[in-house]
Amino acid sequence: MNTKRILIVGGVAAGASAAARARRLSETAEIILIERGPDVSFANCGLPYFIGGEIKHRDALAVQTPQTLKAMLALDVRTSAEATAIDRTGKRVQVRSLASGTEEWLTYDKLILAPGALPLRPALPGIDDPRIFTLRSLQDMDRIKAAAATAQRVAVIGAGFIGLEMAEQFVRLGRQVTLIEMLDQILPPLDRSMTLLMEDELRRHNVELILGDGIASFSSEPDLACHLKSGRTVSADLAVLSIGVRPDTALARAAGLELGPRGHIRVNEFMQTSDPDIYAAGDAVVIKDLVSGEPIAVPLGGPANRQGRLAADHMFRPDKVQPYSGALGTAIVRAFDVTAGLTGWSGKRLHAAQRPYRTVTLNDNHHASYYPGAKPMLLKLLWEPETGRVLGAQATGFLGVDKRLDVMATAIMGGLTIDDLAQLELAYAPPFGSAKDIVNLAGFTACNTRDGLITPVDTIPDDPAVQVVDTRPAPLVKAHPLTQVRSVNIPLTTLRQRLGELDPARPVVTVCAFGKTAYFAARILAQNGFQVSTLTGGIRAHFDPRTPARLPTP
Amino acid sequence: MNTKRILIVGGVAAGASAAARARRLSETAEIILIERGPDVSFANCGLPYFIGGEIKHRDALAVQTPQTLKAMLALDVRTSAEATAIDRTGKRVQVRSLASGTEEWLTYDKLILAPGALPLRPALPGIDDPRIFTLRSLQDMDRIKAAAATAQRVAVIGAGFIGLEMAEQFVRLGRQVTLIEMLDQILPPLDRSMTLLMEDELRRHNVELILGDGIASFSSEPDLACHLKSGRTVSADLAVLSIGVRPDTALARAAGLELGPRGHIRVNEFMQTSDPDIYAAGDAVVIKDLVSGEPIAVPLGGPANRQGRLAADHMFRPDKVQPYSGALGTAIVRAFDVTAGLTGWSGKRLHAAQRPYRTVTLNDNHHASYYPGAKPMLLKLLWEPETGRVLGAQATGFLGVDKRLDVMATAIMGGLTIDDLAQLELAYAPPFGSAKDIVNLAGFTACNTRDGLITPVDTIPDDPAVQVVDTRPAPLVKAHPLTQVRSVNIPLTTLRQRLGELDPARPVVTVCAFGKTAYFAARILAQNGFQVSTLTGGIRAHFDPRTPARLPTP
Repeated sequence: MNTKRILIVGGVAAGASAAARARRLSETAEIILIERGPDVSFANCGLPYFIGGEIKHRDALAVQTPQTLKAMLALDVRTSAEATAIDRTGKRVQVRSLASGTEEWLTYDKLILAPGALPLRPALPGIDDPRIFTLRSLQDMDRIKAAAATAQRVAVIGAGFIGLEMAEQFVRLGRQVTLIEMLDQILPPLDRSMTLLMEDELRRHNVELILGDGIASFSSEPDLACHLKSGRTVSADLAVLSIGVRPDTALARAAGLELGPRGHIRVNEFMQTSDPDIYAAGDAVVIKDLVSGEPIAVPLGGPANRQGRLAADHMFRPDKVQPYSGALGTAIVRAFDVTAGLTGWSGKRLHAAQRPYRTVTLNDNHHASYYPGAKPMLLKLLWEPETGRVLGAQATGFLGVDKRLDVMATAIMGGLTIDDLAQLELAYAPPFGSAKDIVNLAGFTACNTRDGLITPVDTIPDDPAVQVVDTRPAPLVKAHPLTQVRSVNIPLTTLRQRLGELDPARPVVTVCAFGKTAYFAARILAQNGFQVSTLTGGIRAHFDPRTPARLPTP
Repeated sequence: MNTKRILIVGGVAAGASAAARARRLSETAEIILIERGPDVSFANCGLPYFIGGEIKHRDALAVQTPQTLKAMLALDVRTSAEATAIDRTGKRVQVRSLASGTEEWLTYDKLILAPGALPLRPALPGIDDPRIFTLRSLQDMDRIKAAAATAQRVAVIGAGFIGLEMAEQFVRLGRQVTLIEMLDQILPPLDRSMTLLMEDELRRHNVELILGDGIASFSSEPDLACHLKSGRTVSADLAVLSIGVRPDTALARAAGLELGPRGHIRVNEFMQTSDPDIYAAGDAVVIKDLVSGEPIAVPLGGPANRQGRLAADHMFRPDKVQPYSGALGTAIVRAFDVTAGLTGWSGKRLHAAQRPYRTVTLNDNHHASYYPGAKPMLLKLLWEPETGRVLGAQATGFLGVDKRLDVMATAIMGGLTIDDLAQLELAYAPPFGSAKDIVNLAGFTACNTRDGLITPVDTIPDDPAVQVVDTRPAPLVKAHPLTQVRSVNIPLTTLRQRLGELDPARPVVTVCAFGKTAYFAARILAQNGFQVSTLTGGIRAHFDPRTPARLPTP
């Protein structure tokens, strides 16, 4: 490319990555980075952890500064500078200095838009109370940290990934936290059963959880009062709104670039907008979903960085660059000792899209049970019935959740099937995994489901004809009774002798703590002519996310 | 299948898995498990950890007992029973009770051989000294634990996976450990540079490491003396031989089953031997390598378990089972705070097989650098030049090594290319990873290599014409000088101004601690007409596995 000048609007994740890559590909290009805020290339995802004090030095969040970018990459970095208009015909951008108010037009050969997203801040009554914050920039972070220093009660509105991180960090600071979520579960992208453990963990850390109730308005009396749709009021000294983001695409819209239905910039698989000399990347774009090929917005740091890099690559080496493979929406969050996350499509999303899918949920320890420190994990796998191809996975537990999500994300990218998961050869030594890892078990269970060896159910039918068989050992049932449904306890080890206690004419559902002995029992019952299904994921997935698989050895 | 009776010879990993799966598929089959030892289904991989006391209760290692197998699976388990002959024509196996010495012939409809492997115990002079142990069974474990109680000096012979685990556990017990390895590196399956950190870790824990020296003989004087090939003698109170295993296939050989070149039982992709009514699985078989399709033996617990299961599956549902996908040889070991492992093919194996490959090595932190607790990791990636397909990966570090190996194993199974690795969407939040994970970086670097943007070298040519440029900041060079090669320090941030100090007619090799700024510098130099290559993996991979990327912030 003979490009002389590259303008990049937005200097955080996608923009900074694009600039760095562009410089590696061309020492002669003039690269100007225009950033509205005072900072470039800062660690967006680290902001909650500085508020809570886990990250102690604010400098740690400044991955790069304008000075280091100049020294390392010979970039012309202009902070506190706002791009106010694009003249596509003249190939120039109007930039206003926020300090001086002066404006100038900068020409470009190629333009990259990386404006990011803005936190949603709905026009509710009282929303302008200065005690209501959103978190996007280092300055937002500083303001929240300062306010938190004197606040006692904190309301976090929105229990998504950022909301959970904020709730955790405020608890870390010793604050009294109320977490308010409009939906009937935390972590909206996940399926309900995968959120129970995290909800329990929050409550154990004295987070007051209000689910199924949204914010209606705020008032000052003089405490900040958060009025919920139910009529309930939560008083707080500060509130953080974490209910989502919207793409910051006014500039792109005004320039006539093609936008998606929700205002994101449309790009092709090389991150080119409808104007081939203008690229866009990061939170502001709508890209291709890897599973369905449909357009999707994934406002996350990983994709933003890789998209920015890809845009620069395509600019200089259009024949060398592999098209964007599409987004999986892989995401993860930790709150206290619990981790939860997903990759690909969830059950609710597949259901809403009316895509055919099947699913199993299962528990196993994160490494060999016989090695000290093994922690249980819940894994949900979703696949395409016709092909067996993995469509998505979710996991929650204490350790090793990130590893299984990464394996599943890689599996989806590789088009692996449930048969392949069964055969995956993962790294096993007692401190790291199991001879049959939970990912293998998920493959086994899915294949068993496909082949009709097991019939997993997500709920126990509310039908008096159904015989619910709790297959756990009797002492375990006594210590951790299944109170939510009427059941008969027939421990697996006695089942073959006690088949006569069950009515072969009536359906059976087997349940246990983890779902494993219930599966074993179902195989015995099925081979003895019973119509049997198994509660997938066991009692842990549906009723009690901490119920143990066995009693502690004395 | 109308199979009435299934005989399984060997009741640990593959055998027990086969039995369990067979029962799930048939309540009516008679399933007899014949095990020479007194235990079935025990946690083989946990033995070192009980010796060292990490696993406190011996019972934890008994995953199943004959009693639980009978109760759960209605198996007929015969321990201390040895299969002594197979009559293939009569479809029967001769079994001798080791207690009574009585023999009987048991007929079978299908037979599964899962005899496992025996530790190598070469016929060296003095090998029969009772203070020389090998570790395979719970009884071996008990003997070593008893001997270790009074021993002060322990010689571990063979620095493979088990040898390292044993060395670690003896140190844990406060013993003085000498680790002897015939090759010039520990962990023979790995490439040399990937073992440096672990070697350093062993030395830091006062393990005396003797490399490039093999055992020649033993004598008793009265201490146990281990005489090495070099003439050196290591005195010890006990010695553990961990120099490898050989398949325990005398029974199969006598029965005329087809064996591989090194005595393993040949099986097809459904685990059938040359006699279709006889299956084999586990450490004793030779299977298909996933990368090359060639025969390979992988004596590891994970494959053994899955092979046993597959054999049972094929026996009952030949039309439903997916063929064995092939082995990757994924393996991992921890010693103290360091972990190392591999999946797929190593550089030395590819080199020996004369398969074309390319490779890069790189360092990065295991999660976001700005989040507390980030630990560096070294990752090596090998790929096929023509297709870009991943052939293998190795990793070593402190945390998160298992995760990257599992991602790479999944990538190989999915046929992913280096371009795909660059785009993998892995789970990112500060405690878990980075926006650009080291797996992505490996993909980036590999693509850069393929595209000629970087020329990685594994050694610095011993040629006075070569200009070695150390691109680290001057204070870092002062604190951690590169003593092994003559170099000039031109920090990356000053390089553009100091190009005149280098002779454009002579080749340049850039080096730095992690390999990152050296790459950045190489891009500047290349674009200024220099012929430049970069030491892949930096100083950490070749000279000092702990050299830091930056000085600690004051």
